[in-house]
Amino acid sequence: MPATDYDPIKFHDGMVRAGLIVPVGVQGVFGRNHVFEDVLARFDAAVTKLETADFFVFPPTIERRILEKVGYMDNFPQLAGTVHSFFGKELDARKLAERIHSGGAWGDAMQITDVSLNPAACYPLYPTLPGTVPDTGRVVTMLNWVFRHEPSREPTRMQSFRVREFVRVGDVDSVVKWRDMWLDRGVEVLRSLGLEANPDVASDPFFGRGGKMMAATQKEQKLKYEVLVPVNSVEKPTAVCSFNFHHQHFGETFHILNPNGEAANTACLGFGLERVTMALFKRHGFDPEGWPSAVRQRLWP
Amino acid sequence: MPATDYDPIKFHDGMVRAGLIVPVGVQGVFGRNHVFEDVLARFDAAVTKLETADFFVFPPTIERRILEKVGYMDNFPQLAGTVHSFFGKELDARKLAERIHSGGAWGDAMQITDVSLNPAACYPLYPTLPGTVPDTGRVVTMLNWVFRHEPSREPTRMQSFRVREFVRVGDVDSVVKWRDMWLDRGVEVLRSLGLEANPDVASDPFFGRGGKMMAATQKEQKLKYEVLVPVNSVEKPTAVCSFNFHHQHFGETFHILNPNGEAANTACLGFGLERVTMALFKRHGFDPEGWPSAVRQRLWP
Repeated sequence: MPATDYDPIKFHDGMVRAGLIVPVGVQGVFGRNHVFEDVLARFDAAVTKLETADFFVFPPTIERRILEKVGYMDNFPQLAGTVHSFFGKELDARKLAERIHSGGAWGDAMQITDVSLNPAACYPLYPTLPGTVPDTGRVVTMLNWVFRHEPSREPTRMQSFRVREFVRVGDVDSVVKWRDMWLDRGVEVLRSLGLEANPDVASDPFFGRGGKMMAATQKEQKLKYEVLVPVNSVEKPTAVCSFNFHHQHFGETFHILNPNGEAANTACLGFGLERVTMALFKRHGFDPEGWPSAVRQRLWP
Repeated sequence: MPATDYDPIKFHDGMVRAGLIVPVGVQGVFGRNHVFEDVLARFDAAVTKLETADFFVFPPTIERRILEKVGYMDNFPQLAGTVHSFFGKELDARKLAERIHSGGAWGDAMQITDVSLNPAACYPLYPTLPGTVPDTGRVVTMLNWVFRHEPSREPTRMQSFRVREFVRVGDVDSVVKWRDMWLDRGVEVLRSLGLEANPDVASDPFFGRGGKMMAATQKEQKLKYEVLVPVNSVEKPTAVCSFNFHHQHFGETFHILNPNGEAANTACLGFGLERVTMALFKRHGFDPEGWPSAVRQRLWP
């Protein structure tokens, strides 16, 4: 497929034919093969080595209370994934099985648990940081699976995907400076891989009419930047990483303090690893062996 | 902590103090630090290189219909995790936010989606295999996050964890032989790492009274073996891997055929990567730098 031929469905089908992804019965949760995973891991390694940071992996499921506390259910209920399980006894279980095998709906037989799917790679970190951060602040990196309930035929819009995340905690100036430094760095690293990467001010998909205002404010205050790369089209390039400043939102919510006693500022940035991987396949073709040597050298040093 | 001091809560607290795991507000979904992740990745690599196989990664969320089709909701509803989201409009969203902020229960505001958490690393594979397998069958390996709704203070009993899985598809003899060969191999690789690993016939935690009979049949037919290592106690060692023969269950359900036209037999085996990692910390101490050189050489070759 020539790079100028932008068509998300053709691109999806091309990745399937090349064996890179394995389609399943629902959208946005396909399997990835070893070639896809190798590119993803190599890009992840290339980014991770750019900064020294504490390193954690958190599971795909997190404490549900986090969604409640940070306002996720107010702002993005349509994207949330709460985890429900069966709490009934013998007879209830038999009824459940009958409902399922008769082909009926059975979601109301399940009750909400204390965990939910993690919608943002940085969320599980903040509740683990209460107390005072060091004078120089703190930098943490994570590799987490995140979930967004938005099934789509468009391959870059997934329900489950991985994010290489960095979080900076500290005073307002150092945090904003760090976020902006990483925005430049993100553009650079993507361009060094041959991608036509460009930054832009962005907003989150807040729910409903009130959400439109919140998105406008977010843009006005330049709280969120994204780096975009053409994958599905040139006119509407795909966000492959985002760079967010949270003011003291998480510092206040989770009692994270700067040495002066004030609530800490935080910023986070995340590379959507599947999206970057797909952008590379779109740009350079489905076979990494044939990619330009500069790109190969950068990923397989 | 001396190796003879078996106490799951002390062991948990020791891993926390050593920084290996980061506790969160609910049980079984803690964070893992870079030392923990390095050991886990090294063990995973040591196992994966033991057999050539097609390689896939599937997301933590899978098609919900799989749970229905394979009978998971009949047999293990208490462990299932279905994913629910918000499908309402503006006014419903406002009501949901009010309920959450008043501290009330709100699970019934969420509706079941088409995805659920993956409870067994091999499940997402079978629906992708319809048709006739090659004469020599097929071997596939995967690294997937799985979910079991069983919150526990005991650190080896997690809600979210990773499994290095192998699946063999083919005729009954080759599949059973392969499963038994891997049982020996599993014991060997774990013993080579200094672990007191022993195999045993096992059963799954089927739900309810009827489940007791199913578990007995499973043991009688030797469908499931586990390799156990003392982590929490010597008397009740922890299963760190399992080896399962499914007869034609998945072959029939997902129309996977042997070249002779009959439904294929399948077997799967999985190493619980967090459990093996913890067994190593329990056996050799919390600092891998101080582990016996034979163990270090095997993991960091």
